[in-house]
Amino acid sequence: MKWQWQVLGAVCGGALLLGAGILLGHFAVPRAGGGRDPPRWLQDASGDLDEKLIQDVMGQVESARIRENLRVLASRPHLATTPGDRALVQLLRQRWQDPQTGLDGAAEGTYDVLLSFPDPKRPNSVSVCPPVLNGSRLFESQRSEKALTPDQAQEDVVPPYAAYAPSGSPQGRLVYAHQGTRSDYETLVGRGLDLNGTIAIVRYGGAGRATKAVVGAEFGVAGLVVYTDPKDINDGRAGENDTYPNSWHLPPSGVERGSYTESFGDLLTPYHPAKGTAYDAPGHPGIPPIPTQPIGFEDARTLICSLAGPEAPAAWQGALGCTYHTGPGFRMDGRFPSSSEVQVSVYNQRVIKKSANVMGFIRGSQEPDRYVLYGNHRDSWVHGAVDPGSGTAVMLEITRVLGKMLKEGTWRPRRSIIFGSWGAEEFGLIGSTEYTEEFSSKLQARSVAYINVDISVFGGSFCTSLYPSNPCGQHAVPFAVPAPGSGTGSVYDNWRHHTNRSSPTYGVIPSLGSLGAGSDYASFIHYLGITSMDLAYTYDRSQTSARIYPAYHTAFDTFDYTDRFIDPGFTSHQAVARTAGNVLLRLADSLVLPLNVSDYGEALEGLYSVAAQGQVQADLVAHNISLAPLKVAIDRFKTIAADFNQRVMKLKEDPLEVRMVNDQIMLLERAFLDPRAFPNKYYYSHVLWAPRAAGVPTFPGLAEAHAAGDWDAVRKHLSIATQAVESAASTLEPPA
Amino acid sequence: MKWQWQVLGAVCGGALLLGAGILLGHFAVPRAGGGRDPPRWLQDASGDLDEKLIQDVMGQVESARIRENLRVLASRPHLATTPGDRALVQLLRQRWQDPQTGLDGAAEGTYDVLLSFPDPKRPNSVSVCPPVLNGSRLFESQRSEKALTPDQAQEDVVPPYAAYAPSGSPQGRLVYAHQGTRSDYETLVGRGLDLNGTIAIVRYGGAGRATKAVVGAEFGVAGLVVYTDPKDINDGRAGENDTYPNSWHLPPSGVERGSYTESFGDLLTPYHPAKGTAYDAPGHPGIPPIPTQPIGFEDARTLICSLAGPEAPAAWQGALGCTYHTGPGFRMDGRFPSSSEVQVSVYNQRVIKKSANVMGFIRGSQEPDRYVLYGNHRDSWVHGAVDPGSGTAVMLEITRVLGKMLKEGTWRPRRSIIFGSWGAEEFGLIGSTEYTEEFSSKLQARSVAYINVDISVFGGSFCTSLYPSNPCGQHAVPFAVPAPGSGTGSVYDNWRHHTNRSSPTYGVIPSLGSLGAGSDYASFIHYLGITSMDLAYTYDRSQTSARIYPAYHTAFDTFDYTDRFIDPGFTSHQAVARTAGNVLLRLADSLVLPLNVSDYGEALEGLYSVAAQGQVQADLVAHNISLAPLKVAIDRFKTIAADFNQRVMKLKEDPLEVRMVNDQIMLLERAFLDPRAFPNKYYYSHVLWAPRAAGVPTFPGLAEAHAAGDWDAVRKHLSIATQAVESAASTLEPPA
Repeated sequence: MKWQWQVLGAVCGGALLLGAGILLGHFAVPRAGGGRDPPRWLQDASGDLDEKLIQDVMGQVESARIRENLRVLASRPHLATTPGDRALVQLLRQRWQDPQTGLDGAAEGTYDVLLSFPDPKRPNSVSVCPPVLNGSRLFESQRSEKALTPDQAQEDVVPPYAAYAPSGSPQGRLVYAHQGTRSDYETLVGRGLDLNGTIAIVRYGGAGRATKAVVGAEFGVAGLVVYTDPKDINDGRAGENDTYPNSWHLPPSGVERGSYTESFGDLLTPYHPAKGTAYDAPGHPGIPPIPTQPIGFEDARTLICSLAGPEAPAAWQGALGCTYHTGPGFRMDGRFPSSSEVQVSVYNQRVIKKSANVMGFIRGSQEPDRYVLYGNHRDSWVHGAVDPGSGTAVMLEITRVLGKMLKEGTWRPRRSIIFGSWGAEEFGLIGSTEYTEEFSSKLQARSVAYINVDISVFGGSFCTSLYPSNPCGQHAVPFAVPAPGSGTGSVYDNWRHHTNRSSPTYGVIPSLGSLGAGSDYASFIHYLGITSMDLAYTYDRSQTSARIYPAYHTAFDTFDYTDRFIDPGFTSHQAVARTAGNVLLRLADSLVLPLNVSDYGEALEGLYSVAAQGQVQADLVAHNISLAPLKVAIDRFKTIAADFNQRVMKLKEDPLEVRMVNDQIMLLERAFLDPRAFPNKYYYSHVLWAPRAAGVPTFPGLAEAHAAGDWDAVRKHLSIATQAVESAASTLEPPA
Repeated sequence: MKWQWQVLGAVCGGALLLGAGILLGHFAVPRAGGGRDPPRWLQDASGDLDEKLIQDVMGQVESARIRENLRVLASRPHLATTPGDRALVQLLRQRWQDPQTGLDGAAEGTYDVLLSFPDPKRPNSVSVCPPVLNGSRLFESQRSEKALTPDQAQEDVVPPYAAYAPSGSPQGRLVYAHQGTRSDYETLVGRGLDLNGTIAIVRYGGAGRATKAVVGAEFGVAGLVVYTDPKDINDGRAGENDTYPNSWHLPPSGVERGSYTESFGDLLTPYHPAKGTAYDAPGHPGIPPIPTQPIGFEDARTLICSLAGPEAPAAWQGALGCTYHTGPGFRMDGRFPSSSEVQVSVYNQRVIKKSANVMGFIRGSQEPDRYVLYGNHRDSWVHGAVDPGSGTAVMLEITRVLGKMLKEGTWRPRRSIIFGSWGAEEFGLIGSTEYTEEFSSKLQARSVAYINVDISVFGGSFCTSLYPSNPCGQHAVPFAVPAPGSGTGSVYDNWRHHTNRSSPTYGVIPSLGSLGAGSDYASFIHYLGITSMDLAYTYDRSQTSARIYPAYHTAFDTFDYTDRFIDPGFTSHQAVARTAGNVLLRLADSLVLPLNVSDYGEALEGLYSVAAQGQVQADLVAHNISLAPLKVAIDRFKTIAADFNQRVMKLKEDPLEVRMVNDQIMLLERAFLDPRAFPNKYYYSHVLWAPRAAGVPTFPGLAEAHAAGDWDAVRKHLSIATQAVESAASTLEPPA
């Protein structure tokens, strides 16, 4: 998973409303009775979801098998395209082609994609050079994490690095720039600090990885060091006794690796599958222009606690056990001579490598040309037990249970199901993006939904809430799944207890996050407009301020870590498997798609209400811009959606009529796509869910134009939003 | 019809292959027999086209009724949004709502669109000013055409003007610039002529109307005069005895009006329906920057035959009865003092007006959410008997025949049929474009095809060939329609006799033109990727070199003109009505869509073969660019298409299976759309049929990049084309 700080903090989700509880049960199509004897295919075509099947499947999901899956998956490092990754390709294929528990088929799809690796012969480092250069070093960062369990000592553990950061060895005085956001750098400049030629050390969080470097370079920073502050990840704990293997906290030597790109998909071939035939686009968008290297907080402490200069602002202080100063350079009485400089030495190499997706298929019995997609990436930074093993272990358990029924001949879904084990996600969602590029026409015309389960369980022993980043989906399914742990409630109860909002229609319901570009759903929702959701169990945020689970992207994200701290007993994994499997089956088997179009009206109303109040509204009034046409369109949408639901209630037995209604439901999300709305943002075409300037959770084009004070663009994006809503509404009208 | 010179001259068409004769007959789905008694809806859902119905409909199409339709339609001028146009809106609604012969319903859709009209109080003119300006004029162009029949004397005849040309009264020395192409202006400059501040007189043809002015302005031309040379339109005949009302030739006072824009759709709201809510895009793309005025050849003779300067090149000479010189200015011994200057006085006004489309609907019985569209514009420049009356007269006869069966309860199509009477086409295909913008999602998801019949009969008494601008469609339908006139052959025979090509699959077959932006199909095919065709009967090009029928866009395009010269007896109109009605019924009623996907392989092969030979191939080799991936993709497409047709042959009785196959056929065209392929061309997204640099009829992006010598762009567009072909092929694979 490519973690983005926004994901958990954001407000609104990315897709159609999954209101299974609302629609299901009303549409069991009456079979032809009396003297008639309709052909077998007709009975099949009119068959609805079998609730008993759902119960069966949920009952068959075993936590022990998920645990065993994870043990195998995380047994060795499997960085994209390395031998460990290729071994898992074989594992996936073998599982999905198993004669007893496999699917109808499995296949590999490969792409030639641009990756970035450290040079095994010339290790990257962050070092302190003496004032008189003589080749010696006063300090050098650790080349790898400490071997606290046997896992870290395995071969193929890639040393910490910032993928795609360019090679180079800039040297300069060190400054501390907090999180490396624009305002952080501005603060330093505002204090009179000249950033030109400096090496900046910043901590993770607050901005995307690449952005820290891209923006830093704008301010003249020559090299970047990134570390994880114990305050942000460990609730302040930094000692060896308080950290893994003694707790789930990050050890002092742990380093978060990551992809340092601002965009996603193969960098050479935007919008085109990275096949031999693809055109290499000139320029690589969103790659840091300066050498960049991540380090652990043990090393960061040595550097930051020696800094000279004024004290950093209170909000910039962390948990390294000293007062943070901004620099530049080291203080007189510290560990290093005050004129010592820091050198960032990076020897990363960009190479084109063949990366594989493994695809598994179940052919639909009635509507083979309707696809329910379910996926997760396969590649990891090191062992990737949580990221992505926890998701793959769940996926393999779901496919085992379904595969068994399939091979026994007791079940075949109405619609086709496609499972994807994506490659090279950690480098920028590459496998899934190339897949959506290669099959864009087909996927856009036929996909009912995409379910992503990447990290399935974020949490420690206090797992408590379900986290599907979909503005809906909250109703029927989680009711049916018992919550893990000692309680007696459902996943739904647990979820709503921890994060909720008040819905005009449903009362207090679980609230949902937004789908940014944090995992492989990105190209499905943003590029193709396919209804998407992302499911996970996560920890209780009232109990910890950890930015994410502490071993994220380090050599400590191991089976042992998961087994002992993330989910002992694997009951949270089991709950996610049951929930995701349940959603999958309902999407694949329900006669009428279990997605309630009316819930989208509520989402639109939510986006609108933000624009219709406060500063946005005041600014619009001041510039004589009316929201009335948008409001009219949303009201019309709501009326038409309600009428649509009424008509669905009265559906007759005709499979063609059911198909027509399902096409309207399936394609509603597509009506919100406008490939010309955001011409400068790769892949982002969704008028409602594209990224937007932080702080104002309304229509993204409107939010960004408002934030930029560009009133012409505000008018344009209001027009785009209004048209999208009107166009979407018209797709729900009676077709003739 | 917005005439574009390329249309008849171009080579390749714009849409899916209509191979009705190939597919039809194979797919009559067997009804359930024996002891079974399937429900009525199932019998209906599996019902195929009734060939007898086709014969009935063709038999009911009456030439006399088409003639009478045209008499009414062309009884008064009906420029867009004028009272004459609004009267026809009522007529259309009345016909389509008629209790005996109407459709299921009719409705108006209105848009607030930017039009351009001359000022009734200040007539535009082209005049010659004396050397000493005293307000007098040595010559002034005629303000309107001569009243040769009562029609020209009717009120509401709009004086000749160049719509959207800006107001102004530039004055300068006159130069003759042939057709006003870039190379024409370059020729003059190459001869040492300084074009700055000149008034250029150019003739129609060779470049789009607006382009003559846009390019002229680049060379410093201050004002433009455009006329129709008798050589280009009248086979050289220029005398009153040789012209209308004595023949079909253009009278000396006749002036071709037209829209002077390079793009289409409402100029203020590209990609957005011109509703009150739409954002007004800044800048109006493709409008001439200089005052421009069209005149008749009688007036042009006065000007051109007085020019000084060297003789114009031989190819620039025309049929005005004198040797054409280039100027600048008038010669010493001519009609005007040699230092006289020409003034172009234009008082056009741009105004936003409410323009209506009239839409008529027939609800489909089985698949109401599948649309077969049929349309023509309603607005004309003056009486518009040929353009667009001849098409509307045909459409009204088709809707009468279908409406009658509908009201009698003897017929209802399988799929829905939508008829469109578009507004403001003459100003730039505005009504149809706004319609496709407003309903883009719905139309893209559900439209089977769009049939355009604008000018239905171009020809005089020597009408001989059918002209559907679709690379296919040639097989079954025209066989069945008898050719008009004395011969005994079919429309097909006639067509193939006059224009043909050799197909690897079918032998010698009629050849087809390309769909540019000449009529309302443009936004359907280029913007939405909907299979489109344009049908017309036209004259024998071996008998006349007329650029188009001579009265085009003049006040002589009247009922009398049509009745006496274009199609006495209206048998050609009848043949078009039968052909178009036949195609329409097959698309609406056939169980399996009568479009042969394999024929697209032949079209791809044709585009490819042009790139794989001659100069293009040599240049690609020289730049180390391989066509092999494209060739592989095309070969794969052909194999998959052939397999698809094999599977279609074996289709079972299941309506869902038939629907799936039809979805694949319907959406194939959409797979060739890439909204990011031509970011600088409004609306053009079709990777195969977008406009291209003239001369090399291959993939348009490749052709343009090659013509520009931009090898990076060549690589990019090869990649785009290859991906489009691969993506399209994959949509034809078995869906699961």
